[in-house]
Amino acid sequence: MKVLYAQSGGVTSVINASAYGVLDEAKKAGLEIFVGIHGISGVLREKILNVTDRELEGLKTTPSAAFGSCRKKLKSQEDISRLFEIFEKYEIEYFFYNGGNDSMNTAWKLHEEAKKRGFPLKVIGVPKTIDNDLPYTDHCPGYGSAAKYIATAVMEATLDLRSMYVDSTRVFVMEIMGRHAGWLAAAAGLGWLNGIGADIILLPEVPFDKEKFLNKVDETIRRKGYCSIAVSEGIRYPDGFFVSDMGFTDSFGNRQLGGVGFTIAGMIRSELSLKTHVAIPDYLQRSGRHIASKTDVEEAEMVGRTAVKLAVSGVSGVMVTIERKSNEPYKVEYETVGLNKVADQTKYLPDEFHNEFSVTEKFFEYVKPLVEGEIFPTFRNGLPVYTIFREVEEL
Amino acid sequence: MKVLYAQSGGVTSVINASAYGVLDEAKKAGLEIFVGIHGISGVLREKILNVTDRELEGLKTTPSAAFGSCRKKLKSQEDISRLFEIFEKYEIEYFFYNGGNDSMNTAWKLHEEAKKRGFPLKVIGVPKTIDNDLPYTDHCPGYGSAAKYIATAVMEATLDLRSMYVDSTRVFVMEIMGRHAGWLAAAAGLGWLNGIGADIILLPEVPFDKEKFLNKVDETIRRKGYCSIAVSEGIRYPDGFFVSDMGFTDSFGNRQLGGVGFTIAGMIRSELSLKTHVAIPDYLQRSGRHIASKTDVEEAEMVGRTAVKLAVSGVSGVMVTIERKSNEPYKVEYETVGLNKVADQTKYLPDEFHNEFSVTEKFFEYVKPLVEGEIFPTFRNGLPVYTIFREVEEL
Repeated sequence: MKVLYAQSGGVTSVINASAYGVLDEAKKAGLEIFVGIHGISGVLREKILNVTDRELEGLKTTPSAAFGSCRKKLKSQEDISRLFEIFEKYEIEYFFYNGGNDSMNTAWKLHEEAKKRGFPLKVIGVPKTIDNDLPYTDHCPGYGSAAKYIATAVMEATLDLRSMYVDSTRVFVMEIMGRHAGWLAAAAGLGWLNGIGADIILLPEVPFDKEKFLNKVDETIRRKGYCSIAVSEGIRYPDGFFVSDMGFTDSFGNRQLGGVGFTIAGMIRSELSLKTHVAIPDYLQRSGRHIASKTDVEEAEMVGRTAVKLAVSGVSGVMVTIERKSNEPYKVEYETVGLNKVADQTKYLPDEFHNEFSVTEKFFEYVKPLVEGEIFPTFRNGLPVYTIFREVEEL
Repeated sequence: MKVLYAQSGGVTSVINASAYGVLDEAKKAGLEIFVGIHGISGVLREKILNVTDRELEGLKTTPSAAFGSCRKKLKSQEDISRLFEIFEKYEIEYFFYNGGNDSMNTAWKLHEEAKKRGFPLKVIGVPKTIDNDLPYTDHCPGYGSAAKYIATAVMEATLDLRSMYVDSTRVFVMEIMGRHAGWLAAAAGLGWLNGIGADIILLPEVPFDKEKFLNKVDETIRRKGYCSIAVSEGIRYPDGFFVSDMGFTDSFGNRQLGGVGFTIAGMIRSELSLKTHVAIPDYLQRSGRHIASKTDVEEAEMVGRTAVKLAVSGVSGVMVTIERKSNEPYKVEYETVGLNKVADQTKYLPDEFHNEFSVTEKFFEYVKPLVEGEIFPTFRNGLPVYTIFREVEEL
């Protein structure tokens, strides 16, 4: 009985903990284990690694996709046929695809094709996304650690700002990932649980009103001398136009997109004459394994193990979900949802979790257990030791 | 016998460990302890806090300036006289100023003025800067932790990039602080000690040659598929013009400065047609206490303690320095240098520490002990617990 596992979509700092969960559980079940390099992109080119006898423990503390990821969508019948050739050649009976929305769509197509062909393939989706916007699951592995990174970074940067505001910078802006939903930006408010966080949070769920925003900044400055702002890359004007469209082209003629942090800071400089600083953590927020959440790492591993148990018991065509059973003490159970239901849907931040410029107590209750606990990597030479498979560079 | 301690200049993640060193050593010596809020800016307005009976242990794990910092330069005789009025009123005999270049200049002026007035004031400078560009000291408290933050961030972001490069982003650019010297940017290469780091480092010490740079990116992409780049905010063209001058104004009519990461990425997009991602950690790199270096924290505390011992023994007009006595085992001694010598000088990255696009073994030897060891803050609610003095907001 042979297993194929692959990673897909934007990475997280704990997706490899899911890999470990899948691979270790498969090993325990006595299965032979193959891994696709760079998701289905690599599988299509037969870039497949037998890891049955590899030491895999290091995956638990390594961020990003240790086996490489891809953004490939499965569209052509030719690609689907090619994948089944590979499955046949390697005698794959279990396929685990670890990713987000698009990846679940891919997994669904393979599950349907297997049924059509009468091919004995069990397909299970293993969820991951820092964005936390997958439906049918209380939350998604990857989110807790990204939220912990963001909350910590905002706390530290805000302490920096309050050190300097008397005769230097008065406004700090941090641009946060999340093109559609505000789950990550919301985490910038979490530091208030320990006394310091973002004063203003701009969410994609709230249409951006420039005047109200500038008034809020001004009021904050008058009240406390400085203002710390978290802005989601996905905020839009009421007409749906992205605020991150900077409204000009650079010296090379390219339209400038994506610098919403600088756009917001520019408004504040121009209209309130205040000195600003801007941080854009970009990849750092989704790969910051050194500050991962223990809850998140453990759940990431568990969704992987659950996927294998389900497949071995004959289940196919589902994604593993996390259902919260109680909050104090925090308790979850692992359930499933049909892969076809998950694809192409977005779970937004509920109204009760936020108001216009901030988050609510209900959000704190929701997110607190997800960032709980530390599980640091090993350090050598003063730096984290991460597991690096050189095969990822040999495509 | 009374002590006044204050913080000045851009903050670090360990300046409060120096504060703890000064304040705890002063407490041991039976001195009454005052702290200036927001450096001499606050002292001039008599914003002075008696912390003799405060619990200060939390300072050791709190980033940024817990007592507030300032950028004020001491220029007018009026300000100097006002400070001596305050010193007299509070019967200050020891003044410790914790900062960088400009702050040492301030300390020097106060030392000279005290001599002139026959005022029994001992003035000692306590060094701090993430930039590591203070002369007469092997290195400076604050640098090791910022270097550790940067090295870790580049490792993690590069792992992210190598996960995604097959059909998405191929170039990652991280913009790093350091307007004059390349010490911080150099740290982006440190991850190679553990197998992954920046492929290209652009230092202010090397005039920027666009064609050679683009060739190097192209060669790296051809060889390994992706390219991770660290760029110092201070890089200049051979004619001295900052590369960070983006060459255009934004939609509000402001000249765009400081986005050197985006400028570099724009060149790569335009001329090599490669998808790029840009990170600008900004304040995060100088306030990232959650990933501080143990060596750095301990040395920061020791320079503080040494300052008090010197002052009590009658020394004045010096800054504490760190002299490296051996590398394996790493051993330092604390010495002094005249405050007048330190002011307005910059220590650049030596030629033997770098080549055109990278760092050398000699740099690794130098920096390894400085990032060694971890000393994490306490966590509550899944986030660091930092010490927050509310008085900093009451100026």
